Amino acid sequence: MTLYSYWRSSAAYRVRIALNLKTLSYETVPVDLLRGAQSSTAYLARNPLGRVPTLALADGMTLTQSMAILEYLEQVCPEPPLLPQDAAQAAQVRAAALVIACDIHPLNNLKVGRKLQAMGHGQEAVVAWMTDWMTEGLRAYARLLPEGPRFSFADTPGLADLCLIPQLYNAHRWDMDLSGLARLTDIEARCLDLPAFAAAHPDAQPDAA
Amino acid sequence: MTLYSYWRSSAAYRVRIALNLKTLSYETVPVDLLRGAQSSTAYLARNPLGRVPTLALADGMTLTQSMAILEYLEQVCPEPPLLPQDAAQAAQVRAAALVIACDIHPLNNLKVGRKLQAMGHGQEAVVAWMTDWMTEGLRAYARLLPEGPRFSFADTPGLADLCLIPQLYNAHRWDMDLSGLARLTDIEARCLDLPAFAAAHPDAQPDAA
Repeated sequence: MTLYSYWRSSAAYRVRIALNLKTLSYETVPVDLLRGAQSSTAYLARNPLGRVPTLALADGMTLTQSMAILEYLEQVCPEPPLLPQDAAQAAQVRAAALVIACDIHPLNNLKVGRKLQAMGHGQEAVVAWMTDWMTEGLRAYARLLPEGPRFSFADTPGLADLCLIPQLYNAHRWDMDLSGLARLTDIEARCLDLPAFAAAHPDAQPDAA
Repeated sequence: MTLYSYWRSSAAYRVRIALNLKTLSYETVPVDLLRGAQSSTAYLARNPLGRVPTLALADGMTLTQSMAILEYLEQVCPEPPLLPQDAAQAAQVRAAALVIACDIHPLNNLKVGRKLQAMGHGQEAVVAWMTDWMTEGLRAYARLLPEGPRFSFADTPGLADLCLIPQLYNAHRWDMDLSGLARLTDIEARCLDLPAFAAAHPDAQPDAA
């Protein structure tokens, strides 16, 4: 498999963690979002959305949208599981993952920042916009977690953790105030201790600047 | 089951369609987002995110986040299926659904509009913001569709159609230019002809204004 990735993309980071946890081997092809490589004809032929990640399968089929790719990996390679077997328990884990994938991340990506700049906002206002959505969203995420488990929902990392860790990378990057969210930073420390997460970290990518 | 819903919420609309397609009976409890009912103590006890929809199951468990609820319904009530059996085909349908659920809808909800207003933008700029994201996103969605099927991916409606139809309702509401997207409006016409979609339409809801 080939993963078209960008080191700082949280969506690509999620998929890198899943591939590593499931010990699936893959080649990383960097797509330089800052230089517009996602809009090249060659890339758009693989991913008509012009976004990362794209996962190209061995048979040539390409998959897009990180949350769809994660569900695919869970279906074709169920071990170790990212979701509980029970449907209602799985829905709780998916809901927390989606707080990040739907309620935070789409408001904070590069495209949105550029649009706000085009609407006359400076860098300070753009960073405030990002940290405001992260603050509200990460607090909401924390309220969904049960007491007790070492990771968000279990004693092994799952789908929600795969979304949380890349979002916390962004939170640190933009200097968000994480006080009051010790449960989340504790989970982060435990995740980053695991080789699957460490190898997926932006700084460990071939295109890290 | 009880669905906490708001007539114009696209996320609630998606779940209403799924419940109807799968002929699951449910009671609708309206949550008046304009009056802030989603932030009441009683509602937050059911849904700590303060968003709609919430699906309360017969055993008292509550599910949040529309895309997690749809996956739950698909698991516990697989007929009629919203996703293909094949994992890679299912990933293509999920990816299209997520173009709407992640790349369009989160940028266009009530909270985001209010924040843009607080940042000094008038109604015209807010509507332009919404229609710009819808235009880009719906064009991307259209590029993902195979030629031939009556609905987005098959001859029966699936997960992607459940996301598309509520988004097109918003597109009409904000007078978005849908020229060049005839494939999508054709699918919309076929969906709205089906009783499951018609009964889920905002105008058919008890709280429609």
